Amino acid sequence: MRILVLGGDGYLGWPTALHFSARGHEIGIVDNFTRRRAHMDLGTGSLTPIRPLEERIAAWSEVSGRTIRSYVLDLCDYLAVTHTLRDFRPEAIVHYGELPSAPYSMISRDHAVRTQVNNLVGTLNVLWGMRDVVPEAHLVKLGTMGEYGTPAIDIEEGYLEIEHEGRRDVLPFPKQPGSFYHLSKVHDSHNLLFSCRAWRLRATDLNQGVVYGVHTDETRLDDRLVTRFDYDDVFGTALNRFCAEVVVGHPITVYGEGHQTRGFLNIRDTLQCVELATLNPAPPGEMRVFNQFTETFSVLHLAEEVRRAARDLGYDAEILHMANPRVEAEEHYYNPRHTKLLELGLVPKLLSEELIETMLVTIARYRDRIDSDVIEPRTKWR
Amino acid sequence: MRILVLGGDGYLGWPTALHFSARGHEIGIVDNFTRRRAHMDLGTGSLTPIRPLEERIAAWSEVSGRTIRSYVLDLCDYLAVTHTLRDFRPEAIVHYGELPSAPYSMISRDHAVRTQVNNLVGTLNVLWGMRDVVPEAHLVKLGTMGEYGTPAIDIEEGYLEIEHEGRRDVLPFPKQPGSFYHLSKVHDSHNLLFSCRAWRLRATDLNQGVVYGVHTDETRLDDRLVTRFDYDDVFGTALNRFCAEVVVGHPITVYGEGHQTRGFLNIRDTLQCVELATLNPAPPGEMRVFNQFTETFSVLHLAEEVRRAARDLGYDAEILHMANPRVEAEEHYYNPRHTKLLELGLVPKLLSEELIETMLVTIARYRDRIDSDVIEPRTKWR
Repeated sequence: MRILVLGGDGYLGWPTALHFSARGHEIGIVDNFTRRRAHMDLGTGSLTPIRPLEERIAAWSEVSGRTIRSYVLDLCDYLAVTHTLRDFRPEAIVHYGELPSAPYSMISRDHAVRTQVNNLVGTLNVLWGMRDVVPEAHLVKLGTMGEYGTPAIDIEEGYLEIEHEGRRDVLPFPKQPGSFYHLSKVHDSHNLLFSCRAWRLRATDLNQGVVYGVHTDETRLDDRLVTRFDYDDVFGTALNRFCAEVVVGHPITVYGEGHQTRGFLNIRDTLQCVELATLNPAPPGEMRVFNQFTETFSVLHLAEEVRRAARDLGYDAEILHMANPRVEAEEHYYNPRHTKLLELGLVPKLLSEELIETMLVTIARYRDRIDSDVIEPRTKWR
Repeated sequence: MRILVLGGDGYLGWPTALHFSARGHEIGIVDNFTRRRAHMDLGTGSLTPIRPLEERIAAWSEVSGRTIRSYVLDLCDYLAVTHTLRDFRPEAIVHYGELPSAPYSMISRDHAVRTQVNNLVGTLNVLWGMRDVVPEAHLVKLGTMGEYGTPAIDIEEGYLEIEHEGRRDVLPFPKQPGSFYHLSKVHDSHNLLFSCRAWRLRATDLNQGVVYGVHTDETRLDDRLVTRFDYDDVFGTALNRFCAEVVVGHPITVYGEGHQTRGFLNIRDTLQCVELATLNPAPPGEMRVFNQFTETFSVLHLAEEVRRAARDLGYDAEILHMANPRVEAEEHYYNPRHTKLLELGLVPKLLSEELIETMLVTIARYRDRIDSDVIEPRTKWR
């Protein structure tokens, strides 16, 4: 299958491109290094020493004998988007090409506007480009579980059957996102739903949980194939950041009480899920929604798991409860469904002490690259 | 009260500014003539010969003895927004300052992106500006009933109590907007709700129906005070366009069967509603939602009402069913609530044959200014 991976230079985009390429698909990567640039601006960077895109692609070719094409362009440039679609003619488009950070979007007005405009316009361009050039293609769009917020009812996968005053309808699940970044994904979902209806496009919106892990089967084949790994306060996510903290002897930073509960998944499961969605496309006119995570944990529980695994390796880790920089409920009900990907055949790799230990060992290898000054939160929501 | 009217040069913004000014409030108008420019680009214009903003303001001063301040700036320019808020220090901000047309947003990719970026960034700037400069001010934000679409259940005012699997919560009412313009208002609503929660701002989101009418008590005081009146396919709305069609001898253009049902209100009721919302502000931290319309009609029913009134004035009007350029249900359930503004004291001016006749007489006065070539729809959704 011809698969175009938008944001194919990123934490998940790069391993996704390799995963599909290893299985014989024809892969194109679109990126303009927005993520690398944002790190430059913030004075942060990947724990793992990632190579420039062309070097990575050459290394992959050397290791696997397979070719990946690259298109360096800004998704906000519509002419470039349509040229690329005409050139590559994708059957599936996997769309990771967005600014991915809640704290980044809360730094200032500029960061909020940049996040929303970048994500909104990029996705509008992809939708109009599909309509104009490849209307049969299937869009696999990365959203986030954070779109739902933490309602007091069970969270369904995208849609909810509602009975009200004796009448029934199936409507989009109400969204209560908690940052301008999460809001940008909600805006995308609404634009996507309308475009599928108006133009009979086909799309799968993946509401993904928090991803953890360093390696996939392909990235571990050669040091030059490693994917980025962020541990800083802006781009680092809970479990990954906790592991980096342990390795440099920083306390594990839990925001508030840590009873905030979220969905999590292994990076290898992200690849499985995206593959399942891509190989089983939505029908024309439908925006299908999958909740993409395998387990829910409270942040405190995760911190305790990391501390336990770390002790076995000889690290003496502390848990530090910090004033919560976010505006979020710390005590809440949380019961999101996640059966649709399981029905398609997902076999989850659940979190284990062994996996955390493997992460700690990998991180320890790059220990000297960690800047302890960028771990604690510098951006407050209020 | 110090009230800043964003989009104060527009169809509703201008009469709103006059209405508040006449009642002794201190008024500032913000506009950058985006609407006048969009008409220039499309080769269309107002039926009524509107004056430049400074001339209108001078005429109002002459007629009423009252002063209105004007700020010519783009809401997408954050520095200009914060300067204005610092200079005027509004207690209430009435926000009409957005691109208002569904067909405009569907013309091309450029128009879709322009509509969404303009509306989104302008409103984000207002929210961040309030946070930074006037956190106590009350934002009265114009949304649209079109945000809801046409669900098969009753439409509540902004929020819905949902029972699901034995649990209950009150959640934002699910939205199914039908154009990139309507989507931009949904995006705004989500950004607004988050900002009220995160920063304890106060806002009222007015989901307004389709407005009809030419004159208000203030605009009729002097020819130079008339507000704009659009009858073209892009900016003209149902009833207003139908009346213009009758006057130039064009058939009344109904899209499809015309059973699409919508909420409508008189322009005078818009002023009443906005005044009620402004004088009764939402508490800090709350985004209050009112559905702002007084009656629901099917488009065909409206066309028939116009034809009946027109006959009494000697016009022989025909109804022409055209292929529907939009993607919308033509047969659907529609029962939106609209009690909250009534509870605040709204006394509706319902649609009457007499009112339509008055509109026809006013329009006939400007008959020579109507360009019949811009009445039929030129933009198709698919």
